[in-house]
Amino acid sequence: MNRERIRELLESVRRGDTGTEAALERLARLPFVDLPEARVDTHRALRAGLPEVIFAPGKTPVQIAAIVQALRESEQDVLATRVEPQVADEVCRRLGAGEYEPLARTLWFGPAEVPRTGKGSIAIVSAGTADAPVAAEAESAARRFGNETELLQDVGVAGLHRLLAASEALRAARVLIVVAGMEGALPSVVGGLVDKPVIAVPTSVGYGASFLGVTALLGMLTSCASNVSVVNIDNGFGAAYVATLINRL
Amino acid sequence: MNRERIRELLESVRRGDTGTEAALERLARLPFVDLPEARVDTHRALRAGLPEVIFAPGKTPVQIAAIVQALRESEQDVLATRVEPQVADEVCRRLGAGEYEPLARTLWFGPAEVPRTGKGSIAIVSAGTADAPVAAEAESAARRFGNETELLQDVGVAGLHRLLAASEALRAARVLIVVAGMEGALPSVVGGLVDKPVIAVPTSVGYGASFLGVTALLGMLTSCASNVSVVNIDNGFGAAYVATLINRL
Amino acid sequence: MNRERIRELLESVRRGDTGTEAALERLARLPFVDLPEARVDTHRALRAGLPEVIFAPGKTPVQIAAIVQALRESEQDVLATRVEPQVADEVCRRLGAGEYEPLARTLWFGPAEVPRTGKGSIAIVSAGTADAPVAAEAESAARRFGNETELLQDVGVAGLHRLLAASEALRAARVLIVVAGMEGALPSVVGGLVDKPVIAVPTSVGYGASFLGVTALLGMLTSCASNVSVVNIDNGFGAAYVATLINRL
Amino acid sequence: MNRERIRELLESVRRGDTGTEAALERLARLPFVDLPEARVDTHRALRAGLPEVIFAPGKTPVQIAAIVQALRESEQDVLATRVEPQVADEVCRRLGAGEYEPLARTLWFGPAEVPRTGKGSIAIVSAGTADAPVAAEAESAARRFGNETELLQDVGVAGLHRLLAASEALRAARVLIVVAGMEGALPSVVGGLVDKPVIAVPTSVGYGASFLGVTALLGMLTSCASNVSVVNIDNGFGAAYVATLINRL
Amino acid sequence: MNRERIRELLESVRRGDTGTEAALERLARLPFVDLPEARVDTHRALRAGLPEVIFAPGKTPVQIAAIVQALRESEQDVLATRVEPQVADEVCRRLGAGEYEPLARTLWFGPAEVPRTGKGSIAIVSAGTADAPVAAEAESAARRFGNETELLQDVGVAGLHRLLAASEALRAARVLIVVAGMEGALPSVVGGLVDKPVIAVPTSVGYGASFLGVTALLGMLTSCASNVSVVNIDNGFGAAYVATLINRL
Amino acid sequence: MNRERIRELLESVRRGDTGTEAALERLARLPFVDLPEARVDTHRALRAGLPEVIFAPGKTPVQIAAIVQALRESEQDVLATRVEPQVADEVCRRLGAGEYEPLARTLWFGPAEVPRTGKGSIAIVSAGTADAPVAAEAESAARRFGNETELLQDVGVAGLHRLLAASEALRAARVLIVVAGMEGALPSVVGGLVDKPVIAVPTSVGYGASFLGVTALLGMLTSCASNVSVVNIDNGFGAAYVATLINRL
Amino acid sequence: MNRERIRELLESVRRGDTGTEAALERLARLPFVDLPEARVDTHRALRAGLPEVIFAPGKTPVQIAAIVQALRESEQDVLATRVEPQVADEVCRRLGAGEYEPLARTLWFGPAEVPRTGKGSIAIVSAGTADAPVAAEAESAARRFGNETELLQDVGVAGLHRLLAASEALRAARVLIVVAGMEGALPSVVGGLVDKPVIAVPTSVGYGASFLGVTALLGMLTSCASNVSVVNIDNGFGAAYVATLINRL
Amino acid sequence: MNRERIRELLESVRRGDTGTEAALERLARLPFVDLPEARVDTHRALRAGLPEVIFAPGKTPVQIAAIVQALRESEQDVLATRVEPQVADEVCRRLGAGEYEPLARTLWFGPAEVPRTGKGSIAIVSAGTADAPVAAEAESAARRFGNETELLQDVGVAGLHRLLAASEALRAARVLIVVAGMEGALPSVVGGLVDKPVIAVPTSVGYGASFLGVTALLGMLTSCASNVSVVNIDNGFGAAYVATLINRL
Repeated sequence: MNRERIRELLESVRRGDTGTEAALERLARLPFVDLPEARVDTHRALRAGLPEVIFAPGKTPVQIAAIVQALRESEQDVLATRVEPQVADEVCRRLGAGEYEPLARTLWFGPAEVPRTGKGSIAIVSAGTADAPVAAEAESAARRFGNETELLQDVGVAGLHRLLAASEALRAARVLIVVAGMEGALPSVVGGLVDKPVIAVPTSVGYGASFLGVTALLGMLTSCASNVSVVNIDNGFGAAYVATLINRL
Repeated sequence: MNRERIRELLESVRRGDTGTEAALERLARLPFVDLPEARVDTHRALRAGLPEVIFAPGKTPVQIAAIVQALRESEQDVLATRVEPQVADEVCRRLGAGEYEPLARTLWFGPAEVPRTGKGSIAIVSAGTADAPVAAEAESAARRFGNETELLQDVGVAGLHRLLAASEALRAARVLIVVAGMEGALPSVVGGLVDKPVIAVPTSVGYGASFLGVTALLGMLTSCASNVSVVNIDNGFGAAYVATLINRL
Repeated sequence: MNRERIRELLESVRRGDTGTEAALERLARLPFVDLPEARVDTHRALRAGLPEVIFAPGKTPVQIAAIVQALRESEQDVLATRVEPQVADEVCRRLGAGEYEPLARTLWFGPAEVPRTGKGSIAIVSAGTADAPVAAEAESAARRFGNETELLQDVGVAGLHRLLAASEALRAARVLIVVAGMEGALPSVVGGLVDKPVIAVPTSVGYGASFLGVTALLGMLTSCASNVSVVNIDNGFGAAYVATLINRL
Repeated sequence: MNRERIRELLESVRRGDTGTEAALERLARLPFVDLPEARVDTHRALRAGLPEVIFAPGKTPVQIAAIVQALRESEQDVLATRVEPQVADEVCRRLGAGEYEPLARTLWFGPAEVPRTGKGSIAIVSAGTADAPVAAEAESAARRFGNETELLQDVGVAGLHRLLAASEALRAARVLIVVAGMEGALPSVVGGLVDKPVIAVPTSVGYGASFLGVTALLGMLTSCASNVSVVNIDNGFGAAYVATLINRL
Repeated sequence: MNRERIRELLESVRRGDTGTEAALERLARLPFVDLPEARVDTHRALRAGLPEVIFAPGKTPVQIAAIVQALRESEQDVLATRVEPQVADEVCRRLGAGEYEPLARTLWFGPAEVPRTGKGSIAIVSAGTADAPVAAEAESAARRFGNETELLQDVGVAGLHRLLAASEALRAARVLIVVAGMEGALPSVVGGLVDKPVIAVPTSVGYGASFLGVTALLGMLTSCASNVSVVNIDNGFGAAYVATLINRL
Repeated sequence: MNRERIRELLESVRRGDTGTEAALERLARLPFVDLPEARVDTHRALRAGLPEVIFAPGKTPVQIAAIVQALRESEQDVLATRVEPQVADEVCRRLGAGEYEPLARTLWFGPAEVPRTGKGSIAIVSAGTADAPVAAEAESAARRFGNETELLQDVGVAGLHRLLAASEALRAARVLIVVAGMEGALPSVVGGLVDKPVIAVPTSVGYGASFLGVTALLGMLTSCASNVSVVNIDNGFGAAYVATLINRL
Repeated sequence: MNRERIRELLESVRRGDTGTEAALERLARLPFVDLPEARVDTHRALRAGLPEVIFAPGKTPVQIAAIVQALRESEQDVLATRVEPQVADEVCRRLGAGEYEPLARTLWFGPAEVPRTGKGSIAIVSAGTADAPVAAEAESAARRFGNETELLQDVGVAGLHRLLAASEALRAARVLIVVAGMEGALPSVVGGLVDKPVIAVPTSVGYGASFLGVTALLGMLTSCASNVSVVNIDNGFGAAYVATLINRL
Repeated sequence: MNRERIRELLESVRRGDTGTEAALERLARLPFVDLPEARVDTHRALRAGLPEVIFAPGKTPVQIAAIVQALRESEQDVLATRVEPQVADEVCRRLGAGEYEPLARTLWFGPAEVPRTGKGSIAIVSAGTADAPVAAEAESAARRFGNETELLQDVGVAGLHRLLAASEALRAARVLIVVAGMEGALPSVVGGLVDKPVIAVPTSVGYGASFLGVTALLGMLTSCASNVSVVNIDNGFGAAYVATLINRL
């Protein structure tokens, strides 16, 4: 149940269209939805006006479906992340609903077109083919969170001509999410081309001395560009969340 | 020479107040100022409308004074960071100017009151007494970059009553910078109290398993609050820079 | 064979109810039970008056059943930890006994209700859904070790309202076990709310920079709350063991 | 101002010995003492009935003296830790008070003999000569916190005869603090000899692969004795704090 | 083809029992045996008078059988280590020979009873049940290398009574191999009980902060007993090899 | 005594200009020069036709002067690296010779102009002011080793315009040495602009998560540009050595 | 489409053999080939005159086949690396072309005999049997890149006689690639035997303290031989790429 | 008081040369010598027939002198290690005795010529000039412990001709101590040349990726030569101790 719907409910009460008891019944579900598996906190989404987010790994399709069901009954939009295809299939089958994006591995329960609440556009830039899933997760989450998004892929630093060709698109964004594995140099270079906040996402792509993303993470933290801040390895969702809050300012 | 001054110069030319040659002379210094010690890039500040920043460690007072001098001749404001007191004394003595903040270790060459270009206020929150210098650097830089700032200190997570007492101040900020050493838990707790972007700064405060800030850094990167992004250990300046760009949006 | 049963045996001998030879036969098994797979030490349990504990990983159902059998013949209670469901099934089938708790993955051979030897209650607090198995192991072990337990789940630091709502329950405990993954901040916050010893258990929950629990571990070791001590990653059993010894004081 | 003194004050008010205004005046200082350098929280000590503790590194003698002064005016006992000899001299000179223990590097402002509030005795066991300062800090803090203490030194695991000779003393303690550097094996061995909670303190003693205490820390966390929990490297004070809370149960 | 057999061959030639050509034919295989998969170096074994050793992981049964075959044709004894049961079965089936020890995972091609060339006995001591495979590998290799061996298991440091009960056996050995996982404290304690060289083998047994044997390794390297040297994690074979060379002195 | 001088000596002998005994006398010093402090190996330099190199740290001015003296008597050119100014002064004073480059901290004993034996030019590119000493060491060594060198400084990745402005110079080099601290991204970007071998030198410049050069090192090892190989942190000399061997091909 | 073919095309246009439109059509594909899965950059290969390289892990046979197809239509040679046998089979079946080398795991689409563009030969030296796949990848790539190659295997440092026996072959090479796992000592020893550039490749071979190649990597970076530079763990291809660029000089 | 002297004392008692009371007086000091600073354990030296060893760092000259004095009064030989020159001076001045070796930093109180109790000779081999102090400590300790020693310096792996020239000396030793920093490859190469036990000592020599000896340590632990075991970084004394025990067998 998001902020908008609560406002409508309250006005409906004011107008006499909804009885106090009925309104109470619906509001009573707030702020906790209790399930056998988890005590779902709808508080935060309500406060921030954002959909609920479920981190799927470690949860069975049955558990995910139950949580989604409970949240949907509170008229809350839901985004599940890191959902494997077979899990997504099973959840959608059980609920008879859900929009799955296979590369991003996100599963969405809400309007096909989320109203734009972000003021500008968020650019998601990625370095290599292998970074695509994390970039896609960031893009999908940012879009579902009500932002216009622009996805720029395969613009690694060892091929500057591509990156420079994308300069205009980069400068057009209000916030940038830059996704890179291996040496994680892309945020530094992009950060030098724009005057907007850059959120860097290291990915676990690479082998040997990339240490499952640690090298990229450290590279981003020590970036020589000052407009870069960093989130956890592979955390495309987290970057989208921060970018959304910024884009609403 | 910042954006505003260039605009004035150009209008002065348009009005005929400044001759083409004189204007040329002043503009000619752009975008590089060449010094024996360093090729100072005035490009970025110009583009971003921010003061130039000098990272002082490893530079002698003579070198710092020379760089500041050259930049000031381009009518550029300058902020030096991590300036030790005796270095600051010497630089100020040589230039006959400069405003030093001892806790923050920043040295400022520019107007005493920088016009507010940030739209809201930036809250700087710190956990313990020992984190104060990093918090002060962030606050000083944010202020010099044209933001209203609010400094909330000694609100560590093991004494929640203080943190909760500051809730209103936290919620009033448009962007938050949270500074903490040791286990670095404060950004998670603050992040859960607000719906604004939180920039976390780990500090090298602590001993033993705090590993000079690595523990705080890792804790912030794995924060259970989604609105947190992170900058390098002790990087108060970097946090202020990112927060400034966000606060201008 | 625990302390109580030995006392009974000796008194039975004193009363003439049990013959010397029979008593000898039973006592002779002490302090070692020799098995092909392992030399089981019943000494410690006898001394501490606690059940024997078997760490199941790396042992086959046949081996576990044999060890349990031997210990049960010494009239000793037995707790097996980290028992996978299919292993538990097989062990129970072979022995025709055993009480399995699937979330905690503990398997118990002893009285359904263990007499309370702990003086107060032990609170087990966990941060997120994913920490539940470790919290459950701690709770199960503490209960089987003769303590009253209170399990408080999903009270992470990014949602302080839940944690504060549980303040009374926290303060009612004589000892607290706090289980958390990711940044491991919960013990610091809980430690600040109570004046009792807090045993922190980092979990391997998380991804990327959580480094399989290392980040949580380091965070707990550098906690700004002074009443916190730490056990190994995922070591719910160990925390319960320490808490039990404290609760008996 | 500790719990006992507040009770006295309140009873004095009840008896009419102290006027309301005077009582108010004294209580008004609670729960914060505001100083230029730090906002001293007297809350915790009040709640726990323990002295205030000041971590000295990074504070000047002037700052330490000011904090102690303010706390003493609230009738609060104060313990400062990690105080270098020359700092201690200067603080004592300024305040005309203070009891310094050079090996432990603690500085005490309170009664020479603290009333015993701990129920049993705390044994502090250390492995080698070089661990003595950390053991001394633990012992000093435990004593100042109202415990009977027993200090057993130089009982390293490579000379078992000494350790075994101390068995009786070890078993007599209600809580044990075990301090060791290098491989940190002592808590495991002591833990196997007693049925009481053991708090292990790794020290930064050693060279090469001892990695400033990390090896000892890891060894203690993976101890094969289940009654061991661990605090930060060199954190003798923290161990004493936890042991005190346990010993009051 | 070992030293002894070459001497016999040469004497046979001297006596005229073997023709020069035939001897040449057999010697010609030295020092290399060339196989498609690997160039087997028989040099070292010849020089040291020890069997050839094959590290099985990463080699197929067919490859192992081929190498063994080639070496056996040179009349060389062969020990294969880390051989999984099904691989051992297949190799033995192909060659119609081979003695497999399942716990040690060694596969032996040579005389059932190797003549004792070691002067005293080698004690192999292990801490816990889970260390048994590494201890067994060390024992098996030491035995196959011509040493009398004594295996002492389950004598961990948290149960000193067992270790002390084994003191005589420990003191009887000429060289000791001590195998331990987790905190790796056993070599320090054993090293303090004997005046003989102790070779410590860390094992990857444990979880969490045992870091797959790194904690045990570091603990052993920083042992407070001076008579301890260390080999790689799980390297039972290497310890046996070093112990054999010492025992031959 | 280098290859060329030996050839001359031998031809002088052939022509009868030098007596056999005299030639013998001079050749006799080869290949070892024995000194109290070190056995100087003139072999390698002879073979490679390169000057001898002395790593100065840990050696006293007296020791360095003695080694240089001995080598100079063998008519060998000498380059000392990491020489602090006061050490250089003292060595030069003692020997009455030597050319010191303060930024590079190299001290040279040989012809002012070394004949060019490298076929093309070596470009040394550095990212920031703080990397200058390492770049200077690489440049000085490459020049003393007989190469034409081009030094391009302050061309970090966050200011691409400068780097692109230097494209021509980069492409003109036959081998490139790229020096960078912090995130170490420069070799990737430069590597993408040229088709020549790039030798990357991480520097220990930076703070916090730059971990004294480890972050830059890892970033370079995982570079997305395939033409990059890496030497040790701060090893400007090593890069120059490798580049020299390549440039002679 | 490589450099040579473009030159032919242009001359064909000049001679009137190819119409402008047809030439345009073929050139138009440059520099990008857009595919659903990836934007393939043919720029780099064109510039460097090297085949395109596809890193296979994480790509399906269908994706690999599509990329190869597109590149082959641009008349570009293609090398795929890290191709598992079953993937290779499927790709070859789909395209009806491709040459697979199972040990090297490379898949080649181009002429069976690549014209020699490297001036000398590249020696690939490996330490143990287990390093063979990485050495084979390096050899295969170097050969496909137009170099004469020499593969020297099983010449580890613990058996110097083999290594010394190969001295001539080592000295005959113009560039050397040295592949080693475990302690990674081979590049130092080889580096001491030759005066040519040595590219060291650490492998992830080993167990325990070899840490998946990190130990070998660190050993190579700190090599006491100055002519060694290093690439990422297991990066045989990268070493071949660098060696190729050097061998073309 | 060593074993030999006790035997003499006892025989003197048997012969009636020494009275019981006098003998008692001297024996009474055993096994502990209690000092204000430390409880000196003379047990171990007695048992092993080796001198007492004092690790000097962290002890004042006064403390060292007191311990030596007490031990000398028990007729015990004493070796102090890691003694800085000025400390050695002061201790010798106070005691009017002591033999200092500056490179080894050992200080000896005992007979100038220790009787040879080791059966063969111990070779100490070191790689570079910078490893000399650790090699010297090992040599000094081995000599003082009653061994014939052979010191072979500057025989690094990048100059095989020197190492091979020393082959005879290496093969003549009964035990070898190999000291190396940087990549730590020397033990592998030496281990391949001999059939005797090799004790490897990593040194903290090097910079950058040598990580204060960690790289050398890891390299030695993963040595491809099977006759190598390892002691702590810079632990020359420990290696001498182990070698002594082996050489007495």
